[in-house]
Amino acid sequence: MGSLQGFSLPRTPEGVSSLAPMPPWYYVANALAVEFTVNAGRAESFLPPGLTLRSQRAAVYFAEWQSVTEGGGENLDPIRSQYRETIFLLSAQFDGVPVAYCPFIWVDQDIALMRGLSAGWPKQIGSVCITRAYELPSPAAPVVGNGGVFGATLSVKDRRVANARVSLRERTDRLPEPSFASAVNVRYFPDLSRGNHDRPLVHDLVQLKSRDVQIGDIWKGEGSLSVFETPGCELSQLQPESVGAGYRFSFAFTVDDLHVLKDLR
Amino acid sequence: MGSLQGFSLPRTPEGVSSLAPMPPWYYVANALAVEFTVNAGRAESFLPPGLTLRSQRAAVYFAEWQSVTEGGGENLDPIRSQYRETIFLLSAQFDGVPVAYCPFIWVDQDIALMRGLSAGWPKQIGSVCITRAYELPSPAAPVVGNGGVFGATLSVKDRRVANARVSLRERTDRLPEPSFASAVNVRYFPDLSRGNHDRPLVHDLVQLKSRDVQIGDIWKGEGSLSVFETPGCELSQLQPESVGAGYRFSFAFTVDDLHVLKDLR
Amino acid sequence: MGSLQGFSLPRTPEGVSSLAPMPPWYYVANALAVEFTVNAGRAESFLPPGLTLRSQRAAVYFAEWQSVTEGGGENLDPIRSQYRETIFLLSAQFDGVPVAYCPFIWVDQDIALMRGLSAGWPKQIGSVCITRAYELPSPAAPVVGNGGVFGATLSVKDRRVANARVSLRERTDRLPEPSFASAVNVRYFPDLSRGNHDRPLVHDLVQLKSRDVQIGDIWKGEGSLSVFETPGCELSQLQPESVGAGYRFSFAFTVDDLHVLKDLR
Amino acid sequence: MGSLQGFSLPRTPEGVSSLAPMPPWYYVANALAVEFTVNAGRAESFLPPGLTLRSQRAAVYFAEWQSVTEGGGENLDPIRSQYRETIFLLSAQFDGVPVAYCPFIWVDQDIALMRGLSAGWPKQIGSVCITRAYELPSPAAPVVGNGGVFGATLSVKDRRVANARVSLRERTDRLPEPSFASAVNVRYFPDLSRGNHDRPLVHDLVQLKSRDVQIGDIWKGEGSLSVFETPGCELSQLQPESVGAGYRFSFAFTVDDLHVLKDLR
Repeated sequence: MGSLQGFSLPRTPEGVSSLAPMPPWYYVANALAVEFTVNAGRAESFLPPGLTLRSQRAAVYFAEWQSVTEGGGENLDPIRSQYRETIFLLSAQFDGVPVAYCPFIWVDQDIALMRGLSAGWPKQIGSVCITRAYELPSPAAPVVGNGGVFGATLSVKDRRVANARVSLRERTDRLPEPSFASAVNVRYFPDLSRGNHDRPLVHDLVQLKSRDVQIGDIWKGEGSLSVFETPGCELSQLQPESVGAGYRFSFAFTVDDLHVLKDLR
Repeated sequence: MGSLQGFSLPRTPEGVSSLAPMPPWYYVANALAVEFTVNAGRAESFLPPGLTLRSQRAAVYFAEWQSVTEGGGENLDPIRSQYRETIFLLSAQFDGVPVAYCPFIWVDQDIALMRGLSAGWPKQIGSVCITRAYELPSPAAPVVGNGGVFGATLSVKDRRVANARVSLRERTDRLPEPSFASAVNVRYFPDLSRGNHDRPLVHDLVQLKSRDVQIGDIWKGEGSLSVFETPGCELSQLQPESVGAGYRFSFAFTVDDLHVLKDLR
Repeated sequence: MGSLQGFSLPRTPEGVSSLAPMPPWYYVANALAVEFTVNAGRAESFLPPGLTLRSQRAAVYFAEWQSVTEGGGENLDPIRSQYRETIFLLSAQFDGVPVAYCPFIWVDQDIALMRGLSAGWPKQIGSVCITRAYELPSPAAPVVGNGGVFGATLSVKDRRVANARVSLRERTDRLPEPSFASAVNVRYFPDLSRGNHDRPLVHDLVQLKSRDVQIGDIWKGEGSLSVFETPGCELSQLQPESVGAGYRFSFAFTVDDLHVLKDLR
Repeated sequence: MGSLQGFSLPRTPEGVSSLAPMPPWYYVANALAVEFTVNAGRAESFLPPGLTLRSQRAAVYFAEWQSVTEGGGENLDPIRSQYRETIFLLSAQFDGVPVAYCPFIWVDQDIALMRGLSAGWPKQIGSVCITRAYELPSPAAPVVGNGGVFGATLSVKDRRVANARVSLRERTDRLPEPSFASAVNVRYFPDLSRGNHDRPLVHDLVQLKSRDVQIGDIWKGEGSLSVFETPGCELSQLQPESVGAGYRFSFAFTVDDLHVLKDLR
């Protein structure tokens, strides 16, 4: 007798219809990032139990992704494989270990949203645009090198939420800080039963585990970042107090695991 | 000491940023529906543990929604309030009681997706279009009455998945069957920890509970429905074997509760 | 020997592929409108040769359309029939006759854009949302009557450009002023040949001609309107100096003609 | 006394609001292309007066663009600069000279649509997706080299219209044929005045003129192409009879001119 299969809803007889397919998930991206600082008290107020603020440092990443599953070939029907994302990260620590915490993240595709929810990324749908580089010189494209200027924007529900710009100057070996590589999330599933709306069924502090991580050439320069007031979005509490360096790089990795740090229920 | 608030991720200091806001959720919709029959064996293969097939009857609903929360006023910034949805329902029973089970559902907005996941609706993002009626006579709009013809379409990831048409003939007191009012869902949260990808953290058979349900005039007539083969979507296993009546009606209700029928873990 | 057919590009052997199909075009819409005043000098600077400013009165319309052609049945594949639009109108006169002039207009569908260009509407693609009314009472929908509050928004290239709100109070027999019914446009086709970029091939002042115009019940009340600064969009030169009444009504008409007032070349 | 400025509608006092900005326009793209053959009689039936069929050869191009104007910096607000396009080309000749004729073209942005109309490209809005290459090796991205497989898709009004695939094998010096570089278009502006719906105001056979053309490395291999039946779209008359080579390459150029070959009125 059959039973339903698949990593996420919808679960079906063959298990090939799940919105989030069975891991492992293979990812590659071009990213822009800008480092900035935020008000310490406000940043701390966004941290979940178990994390404490490490510094006022924050970063925003804009990434243009392609992702596939084992044998899925999604990148040949690229609407199933491509998405763009904006990630905000704060500098926190857990048991004295530096970690990154994501208060807000937006993607433009449902598959990425569902995969992310299972890992505790608080994903919402947004519109993300990022300047692309091309192999040919053109006034229409920046160089990936000294003098290249890239822009990135985030819009949510028809409002511009953030504008960023990165002017490349030099190669570096250092990734922006805080780094998505050390992200600690809260995975969370609320209970709609009356009386339990604030008693979640799942409420865990989780450490993400990526493998086969590759980083391409990292270019660094000046960054700029504007975060706009948006009704119903507390991101504006994390306005930049100062803006630091900007970065551009490619990265790739595989995800099929996470580690539970703490049950928060 | 502050703590994070909100019904769903992202949870924040003020709790006004959650993608799914705190219930109750107030809904109103115009809907088209088409009754059809499916292969019994295939339909049964889509049912979760605890449900058995009641009949070959199935129905698809296309709905154009507006929804708000208590004091939220989302309908005055209507991109936050409006969405469209396609719902497929099978005829099942639980402990001898007739229920509807939803194998597939698509919406065009992330708020509706997140709210739905908490209630076990297996929501994905799709593009849904439904003919509208207007108060003025025009070749551009059907009448809500004898002779009025309405269309509805579903597209997912840039492919047309279903076309429906409803030709109204007469008023009726009966809603289409199976009815969303008796829906039983599976709420499900997968575990990304390696080795546990098929051992979900949440896996419950749940009975939806709506209140303050209102139904407007119900018009009925002939229905038509085409479901197209779509890679990676097992909906085509539920192709209509025969197509029955079509319906158009408005409905409104409030959601802030569900009832757990059975833990499926 | 065959020849290509169709009202607009692409023109094809059968002529059924034109983006703008052969007229007549049948339209029906629900509309919100807000009257406001603008700076007289700025408004005058937006008028084409042949028109002079009549008053500081201006109006913005937000409309949710359905349209079809003769025998086209587009409203049964409603993605081909439905669109939403934001229209700004100034009060002008031509040869002493009051007319309305449209400096800016946005639609969310290419068919409407192409039809509009042929009539001189300076259409661009934008995202328009308008609160809907439903036949059932619900916190999620305003009444079409005293106390009903409707919102409308325009976003262009991921930036919110305008927010409007209308609070209904009473029935009226008067449409908002200036009215789209008296619109005079400039139809314009530029010449890409070098040296001729400012010597258009078509540059006519045209009077729109609608027929079979029907207006439904007109509700009136207080309006509000905000127009936001947007890079590369001079609409903000037409910021409201004061905001007047708001309106909600339905209308329907047929278009298959226009009248040339003056060749502007 | 002021006058309105700008290359296209909307024309405004400052001239910075035109949907299509003043040329020159600078372009850069990554492109996939597939060569195929079509039925000769059908292909001929799509040609405008003045062109005759040269061969059954046809090609489809899928391109991911970035474009800017002089000093416009649109690529730093990339939603104003980026778009994707699908171009179908037939092999024709004019006065014995080989040219390419475009029966159908789709873009996903209004700026590109408006610029294109001025050059006679019969542009419509469509959804185009193209597999991307990345600088890092990953299961999620093909190599630009032997063995790399790329996909591309076109969807129009929520229906999948074409799927293409290119499997790279080797470098080549030859661009696909027919080539966009030799495109001859029909620029066309219809007259909405009753009685004149088939007597256009502009109806010219025009030769496109690009300058500063650069072509990057051209990779070639096997192509595949499927064109699906779509209501109201005669593209399916140009179904591939056989499918030939596939290509991937980058190109860049500048446009600010065209040459009129013949007035077709």
